[in-house]
This record gives sequence, structure tokens and C-alpha cells, in this order.
Amino acid sequence: MSTLIGLLQEVLQESQLSTSESVRGLHSQDESYHAPILPEVVVFPHSTEDVQSILNIAKQENRPVYPYGMGTSLEGHIIPTTDGISIDFSEMNNIIEILADDMLVKVQPGVTRDQLNKELKKHGLFFSVDPGANATVGGMAATNASGTSSVRYGIMRDQVRNLEVVLANGSVIHTGSLAAKSSSGYNLNGLFAGSEGTLGCFTELTLKVYGIPEQIVAGRATFPSVDHAVQAVVQILQAGIPVARCELVDEPSIQKANEFSDTNYSIQPTLFLEFHGNEAGLKQDVEFTKEIVKEFGCKEIEFEKDTAARNKLWEARHNLAYAHVHSSPGKKMMVTDVCVPISKLAAAITHARSVVDQSRFEGGIAGHVGDGNYHILVMFDRDDPEEVEAASKLNEEVVEFALSVGGTCTGEHGVGLGKKKYQQKEHGEALQLMKVLKQTFDPDNRMNPNKLIN
Amino acid sequence: MSTLIGLLQEVLQESQLSTSESVRGLHSQDESYHAPILPEVVVFPHSTEDVQSILNIAKQENRPVYPYGMGTSLEGHIIPTTDGISIDFSEMNNIIEILADDMLVKVQPGVTRDQLNKELKKHGLFFSVDPGANATVGGMAATNASGTSSVRYGIMRDQVRNLEVVLANGSVIHTGSLAAKSSSGYNLNGLFAGSEGTLGCFTELTLKVYGIPEQIVAGRATFPSVDHAVQAVVQILQAGIPVARCELVDEPSIQKANEFSDTNYSIQPTLFLEFHGNEAGLKQDVEFTKEIVKEFGCKEIEFEKDTAARNKLWEARHNLAYAHVHSSPGKKMMVTDVCVPISKLAAAITHARSVVDQSRFEGGIAGHVGDGNYHILVMFDRDDPEEVEAASKLNEEVVEFALSVGGTCTGEHGVGLGKKKYQQKEHGEALQLMKVLKQTFDPDNRMNPNKLIN
Repeated sequence: MSTLIGLLQEVLQESQLSTSESVRGLHSQDESYHAPILPEVVVFPHSTEDVQSILNIAKQENRPVYPYGMGTSLEGHIIPTTDGISIDFSEMNNIIEILADDMLVKVQPGVTRDQLNKELKKHGLFFSVDPGANATVGGMAATNASGTSSVRYGIMRDQVRNLEVVLANGSVIHTGSLAAKSSSGYNLNGLFAGSEGTLGCFTELTLKVYGIPEQIVAGRATFPSVDHAVQAVVQILQAGIPVARCELVDEPSIQKANEFSDTNYSIQPTLFLEFHGNEAGLKQDVEFTKEIVKEFGCKEIEFEKDTAARNKLWEARHNLAYAHVHSSPGKKMMVTDVCVPISKLAAAITHARSVVDQSRFEGGIAGHVGDGNYHILVMFDRDDPEEVEAASKLNEEVVEFALSVGGTCTGEHGVGLGKKKYQQKEHGEALQLMKVLKQTFDPDNRMNPNKLIN
Repeated sequence: MSTLIGLLQEVLQESQLSTSESVRGLHSQDESYHAPILPEVVVFPHSTEDVQSILNIAKQENRPVYPYGMGTSLEGHIIPTTDGISIDFSEMNNIIEILADDMLVKVQPGVTRDQLNKELKKHGLFFSVDPGANATVGGMAATNASGTSSVRYGIMRDQVRNLEVVLANGSVIHTGSLAAKSSSGYNLNGLFAGSEGTLGCFTELTLKVYGIPEQIVAGRATFPSVDHAVQAVVQILQAGIPVARCELVDEPSIQKANEFSDTNYSIQPTLFLEFHGNEAGLKQDVEFTKEIVKEFGCKEIEFEKDTAARNKLWEARHNLAYAHVHSSPGKKMMVTDVCVPISKLAAAITHARSVVDQSRFEGGIAGHVGDGNYHILVMFDRDDPEEVEAASKLNEEVVEFALSVGGTCTGEHGVGLGKKKYQQKEHGEALQLMKVLKQTFDPDNRMNPNKLIN
């Protein structure tokens, strides 16, 4: 038994530590195509003090730590790239307090999105960030996740009011307050949100929540082409219609969704739309939207207020990635994740389609087009160097396009391992500042090394 | 002539530099009570290159620099606390590009809020942040300003999509992109917004703008007490009514407003409200609001869609600070600026009123109560040590209360000189991290020294 394990056993209960092959295997990879690497040991903290103890031992034994939520990352964030400790936060999953009057919730990092929404519903509230996967809030804050409803409610960073963070040196800080806004001190909330575990471990989060809207209407609109659908989105946004969700699903993806989710949606380029508001306002929004989509050749638009039908629709959308995975057993999924200015979205999606068509892959396009964020989902054989090369090339072409029009290499999945190579091109001189920041906060490069930044 | 002036004259035109007593005097103080200090020289850059040259000379001659926008700061941000260079950005005031399709605008830092909105109006757009004063966007980004419409559209930090920044070492970075969201790299946008000139000088800003709403309705609701008014606000927020502005003005402030702005509003605790939306939705919002305010004893509620009447109302609200100043010639204004969680707002305002009543001052209370942010405006004699002491004590009591209920010492005015003493109490261990950050970015403490952090 190594000194490391011995020291960890001194501060943790037996059930809070595992060196078994299977548990280490579970913590060796996420949902992405990145190659798995086993951690030396997996620990399951129950408290901030546990996390401090683990980090102090990591320092003493000179080992890196790798925070782990649900393993739903898509860029290898949780992969232990060098021998070290995987810190699994699943047993820190208490909803500490629902501050209904303040529209806030205090939670531990291992709370999942579904768990949180189930509890909030009892108070007429909901948590808005919806990346599809049932991720933990800690993981979502670490990657600055977003998803279908960000066009209306903002991204994960926008929801973070306060974080309790254990730093590399074992000290504990809080990054904000309960106030709705503040101009006090440097904005640590925003800096730690999206830091991918490279600056510290989150042990408590205070997050913004919202009242469940008086009325919700969702619908599907089909278009003669992806381009028509995207043009309609641009028009909806510019008209100032406060659309709550605005998702593009192309033909191959609709087909996959139908197969996997047992739906019978027309196999055409489709927008999944959702509106939140009061009854009268919503009716007017929906009517206005109908007018706009018709202008762009939409022949079929179906709206539904019924909860079951609406849930079915979003389930089909959310399961799209799994639908692709399911249809290609043994293969791995690569998902591109660029975000471009809205004015460049139509050209970007056209470009994306041509890149897929010229590749050896089928590939489906889907995305949160209200934000200018879209994904190409590609299944490939990780053991075939040619397939790896082709998938990588496809990703690269899409990123290069996005950067050339003022966009970003990752809209919501984060940098992790997969997007590090684009950081210099995207951030230029600012990357140097980010490196200095990392070096200052974590001089021994102990916190999730090799992610986001080198 | 000093070497400093000589070197600056080599890189700047004659009109871009002044050592005159009057110009230096104008740059020695802001709109606050903090004591003026003359800069050694005032420079007026025209370009990013000018700013780089100035910073390089500052480095060479070991002089601090003090960025200056319009001088509307309320916490002494622009005061040259040690001999040095005041950098006045008023001649970098070009609106570089309006990206209407992307709902973005690229501007130089010296562009003012009114200037920007006048131009945007031609495109059916508006810039949402409205702190009252006609500040520059550079200054607003530096203090992370907000104001009346933040409850709906967010604070200044939320509008910043990209900044061009000249760092202390003279290098130029950009902090973001044109994409609506990104998970790429550390969040430099958020870190530089609100950094009060202590990390770098902004030379270009890309900001989010919004479509002018289909309809705007504004109104005044009067209440039997401030407490009733605040309770009504809490109820409006919890009902999920998307109120666009929600301002409390107490009786003494209404009186001052009537005198200064030639209005004839009932002298009672009043909410100034505004709603943005489509016609049908807005009607429903207004009806719902009427029901709520009646529950809290509101007897008089007047709504107006007419632009002139609406403008008059907001002009009266915006001129409140100047109304106080106007009524006490020779005195200086001190404005408290705490922000508390909404659930603590009623207690906080009650506390604020008792603090004022127990002081030697009249004092009016007003604030952006939809965010939990409120101000006490007090006029005092800066030359009378007892008055200074009493004003300082009042501020301190209000801050202590806010911090004790999980709030912040500054909701929107920033730290500057006035709120430095509360940073340790508010941020605890995190303040150490902020100090390290400042030290890393600006090792010679050249960028606006003695502000925000020591």
C-alpha cells in the first residue's frame, strides 16, 4: 500500500476510498472520445473538511487531483492524465437550503440537475440550465455549461451567486454573496465558473433559480432547408420575441431521434421552440413566431401546451446524443461545439454541412441556435487511426471557421483536453495572462492538470 | 519641465496633454465627497497606440496612471492619489460599429451612454445599462455599473462581450469574442469588468444591445409606508412579473424631486415602475401588478404609455442625486450603496430609515429595489470634522447591516476609495487571492493605485 493511500485512509472512512479496478475504470473516462486513463485512487468526500484533507495530502504526497461529478463531460475534463486522485463528489449531494424568497438555492456540488429540479418544483421554482445530460451542478459550474434554455435564462456562469472553493493550498474561500448584484472586489464568481477544476474544488454553490412560468408552450416547425430554419431563428431573435428555447435539429438527427425516442416527427430540418410567459403575452409571441416561420417556408408548425407532449419533445431532443451513440455500437462520439455570432450562423451551418458531407461520416447537426451554438455529432472508431484523423480534421475545420468569423471554439462543453490546441489562436496574447493566473493560483499544477491550459 | 512631460510630448500632439491648473483641477475629483488631489498631468489619448505609449512612459518614469471617463464616479475612482498621469478617454469616443444583426456594438471607452443610445435608436436598438449619470461606457465597465433597468437586463458585466485592454506592461489583449456564449479559457471579460482600472485600461468595448420593446408602460404607485412599498416589490418579483424598472423613492426624495424637476408627485413613498413587452402580455403584467400593489395599501397608481410623461418621470428619478446636491449648496454628497438579498430588503430599508433618523442629516432613500440595491443620499459639510464623522458612521452602519444579512457593501458604485475598508469583512480569505491577482497583473502597482485593493 502506498503512503498516499495510507494517509487518505487516516482521514476518510473505508467506504470513502476505492482502489478497485472497476471503480477506477469508471473514473477513467467521460462520455467523450478521449482515451481513458486510470486514476491511482478514487475518493468520495462528504464535507468541505474532507476535501481540504484530501488536498493537503495531495500536496504532501505531490499528487494531482481530478474532480469528478457524473462523468458526463464531453472534452475529457475528468480524465486523470497523470497518476493521481479522482475526487468523486457524488456523496456531497445535499440540497442545503432553498431560499425561495430570494430565488436562490444552496447546494453541494454533487447534486444533479434532475434532483434539484424535482425538489424545486415543490416550491414553484426551477433551475434553468439544461445541458441535456443529468450532470451535477458542480460539474456544470466547472465547465460553464449551458444548453437549450440559455437563450432566455443565461448560461451557468450567470446563475452562480456564490461558490465555496477549496484552493490548491487547502484554504477555503467564498467567491460572492447572496446579493443579486455587487461591484465589490474582483469578480471571482465568474473566474471560478468555467475554470474546469484547474483553480480549486467547489464544495458549495449558491445558484439563482426561477419561478415556473405561468404558461409554457412548445412546438416544432419544419423547413425546406437548414438554411431556411436558421434564417427564421435570426428573424425571431431580431424581432425581440423572448423565446425560451430554440433548437435546430437537422434531417439525419430527426431520423435518429425517431428511431431512439419512438417519435414520428417529419424528417425535415426542424426547429424545436419553447415560449414562457403569461397567457396573453405568450399567445401574441406564438402568433408572431408563426408569421415569421411562414416567411421562411415553414409548412408545418405544431404547438402544444400539453405537458406530456412537451416533455416527449424535449426528451427526444435531449436524447439525441444517446440516439447517435445507440445507433453505432462500439464507436465513440465526437461532438463539435463552436459558437458564432448570429449574423454568421446561416453561413456556419452551411459550412458545417459541407464539412460533414465531404467527410467519411454521416454526422447529424443540432444546436442551441438561438445562441449561435451548434454541434456536429459524429460516431467514429477510436481504434482506427484513419477514423480518428478524419474526426479530428472535421472538428478542426469547424473550429477554424468559427474563429475566422469572431466565434469561439467551445460554446458550452469547455476546453478540457480537446480544445487546448485552439486556445492560442482564440485568445492570442490573453492566453499568456491565463497561464500566469493558473500559475499564481496553483503553482504546483496540482488542480486537474493538463486541462484548459498547460 | 519634467522628463515625464517631455517624453509624453514626444508621443502626443500638443492638444493631447495639459498641465494647466484648471484641467488638472477638473481631473482631481469625481462627484463624490472624497477629497480632490491634482494629477501631475492630464493626457487625452486618441488610439490604443497612444494608451500603450503612455503606459510605457509611465513605466519608464515610474509613475502611476489614473483612467478618467466623465468623472461621475461616486467613490473616488478617478482621484490621482499619488503624483501621476490622469488618462482622460473623452477623445476616444467613436462608435466604431453597430452590429445590428448580432445585437452588438463596438465602441471606444469615451462614448457616453446618451451618445450611444441616440445612435442605437436609429437601428431600433438600445443600450440597457442606466446608472442615471451620463457616464462613459469605459467608466461603467470599470465600475461594473448598473442602475434602474438591471432588474430586467442585467448589470454592466452582463453586457460585456469583448474588451480590448492595455495591460500595465503595455501589451494589448482581448478578453472575449463576438459569440453570445463561450466556455473557452478563463473568464477575463468578467474579471476586467469591475476591475476599476486596477488591472488595465480599456481601449475598445464590444457590448450587448437590445431591441427597443414593442411597448413600454411606466407608472407611479404610492404607498402608506416604505415598508408597504418594499413588500409589494418582493411580491411582484416572486410572481415572476418581468418588471423592467422598479425604483423606490421615499417621501423626502419625492419632495426634492418635485422641487428640482418641477413635478407634482404626491409626497408619499412611491414606486416608479416600468414594463417592456408586447401589447397583450404587458396589459396582463400591468393588471397583475395593480392587484399586487393594492394588496399592500396602494391607493394611487398611475400608468402612462405616453413617451413625454414617461421621460419626465425617469428624468425626475435620475436627477434625484442632483436634486439633493442642488438643495444644499456648498455641501458634498455621500451616497450609501449596499445591496441585500430580497428577503432582507424590507428590514434593511427600515433599518436605513432609523439610521438616518438617528443621525444629524435629513437624508433621502431611493434605490433599485428590484435588485435589493438601495441608497441613502446625505449632504454634508466636508470641512466640518463632526459632519464627516457622522456621514462616515451612517455609511458604516448601513454596510454592517448589509454584510450581516449576506449582502454586499457596494451594489453598483464600486469600491474605489470609499469601500476598501469593508473588503476584508466582505470577502474574507478571498481578499488575499484578489491581492495576489492584482500583484500578478500589475506588479509595480501602476494601474489606478489605492483603489479597490491595496
